[in-house]
Amino acid sequence: MDYQPQNTRSRRTATAATKLTAKGRRTRARIIDVAARLIWERGVTATTLEDVKLAAEVSSSQLYHYFVDKERLVNAVIEHQADKLVNTTEDADLGTTERLAAWRDLVIEHASAIHGQGGCPLGSLGSQLAEADPAARTLVSAGFGRWTRAIQDAMRSLHGQGRLREGLDPDDLAVTVLAALQGGLLLAQVHRDPRPLQTTLDTIFQMAGLTGPNGVPAS
Amino acid sequence: MDYQPQNTRSRRTATAATKLTAKGRRTRARIIDVAARLIWERGVTATTLEDVKLAAEVSSSQLYHYFVDKERLVNAVIEHQADKLVNTTEDADLGTTERLAAWRDLVIEHASAIHGQGGCPLGSLGSQLAEADPAARTLVSAGFGRWTRAIQDAMRSLHGQGRLREGLDPDDLAVTVLAALQGGLLLAQVHRDPRPLQTTLDTIFQMAGLTGPNGVPAS
Repeated sequence: MDYQPQNTRSRRTATAATKLTAKGRRTRARIIDVAARLIWERGVTATTLEDVKLAAEVSSSQLYHYFVDKERLVNAVIEHQADKLVNTTEDADLGTTERLAAWRDLVIEHASAIHGQGGCPLGSLGSQLAEADPAARTLVSAGFGRWTRAIQDAMRSLHGQGRLREGLDPDDLAVTVLAALQGGLLLAQVHRDPRPLQTTLDTIFQMAGLTGPNGVPAS
Repeated sequence: MDYQPQNTRSRRTATAATKLTAKGRRTRARIIDVAARLIWERGVTATTLEDVKLAAEVSSSQLYHYFVDKERLVNAVIEHQADKLVNTTEDADLGTTERLAAWRDLVIEHASAIHGQGGCPLGSLGSQLAEADPAARTLVSAGFGRWTRAIQDAMRSLHGQGRLREGLDPDDLAVTVLAALQGGLLLAQVHRDPRPLQTTLDTIFQMAGLTGPNGVPAS
């Protein structure tokens, strides 16, 4: 299954980044980093360019030099969050039951520490922007496409090792794991409680034959 | 597992509704209905009171009579969407594999017809409002609490009939089904494609032992 998540990295922001000096790239990266944190903490609407300017300690003209409007900045934040999540998933190398369990622990520990606040950094952007901003929706879609493929690689590897319950398609399981993660993070966010996330991930992995009912990797 | 979704129905909006004449209640209901549709189509931020006023064909003073501000109207929309989803789930009576399969068909047909647009009417409100509006977050949390219990009733019934895969906790499965539905609807929304939703629901039901790999109820 493929959702045609073509590479929609905005030509304009890519050019903007590559044309810069090393110092310019660092400033631009700091602005994106600060904007990503504020948006994740408060939501897109409640985050103004003025907030970003103050928190990133840049002048109005500096901010405008890198991002001519909020839309452009939000697009850069979407790509930044997608990159982080895809890289984290690839680095975690979920293709063994032990590393999958370690990743599950990490995700739940993080959600617990902040009482579910913020939800998924990419999914919450998708939900906030999908209907109002078609360009943003396309970028989120591309990010989820890349993330799906990273999880698919891991599920195919587990499938190759004969770890999945018989009859289970690894690509379908990858989509299901990503959807379950998104939904679990949303429930944790609205309830301010990590338990629905934990329940969902543990139930999925148990049903897939990857763990026993206690969350320990199946031997 | 219980997320303490206490009855947080806003006393103020409840009083406002009960104090009204029959005609007043109809006007108030029409305003909420129109606001719910606009917000679901465009998102909370992109929907103004002016939009609602025009679409509901009421005057400014009429709108203000029922809702003194947008926040109050959005809260009423949250309760309206939660009521609709919980009632639909209860009416669908998902406690047999046949009715669960029929519900799955209905959810996917609806998402297909609109190319995933809007996502979940309650989940998308949660994602848009959770960090910026604590009162709205609490109302969404209460709605999800009621919805979870409606799905739990069905899963307990299926468990009582011996339909769930051995070792599977029906309450945990209910949370997982709701999370999977939320995540599947979000992926369908950002990709404008119902397939991730279909894949997720089918994979969950297959793994739970409720259907064969082809989506047909397990006999």
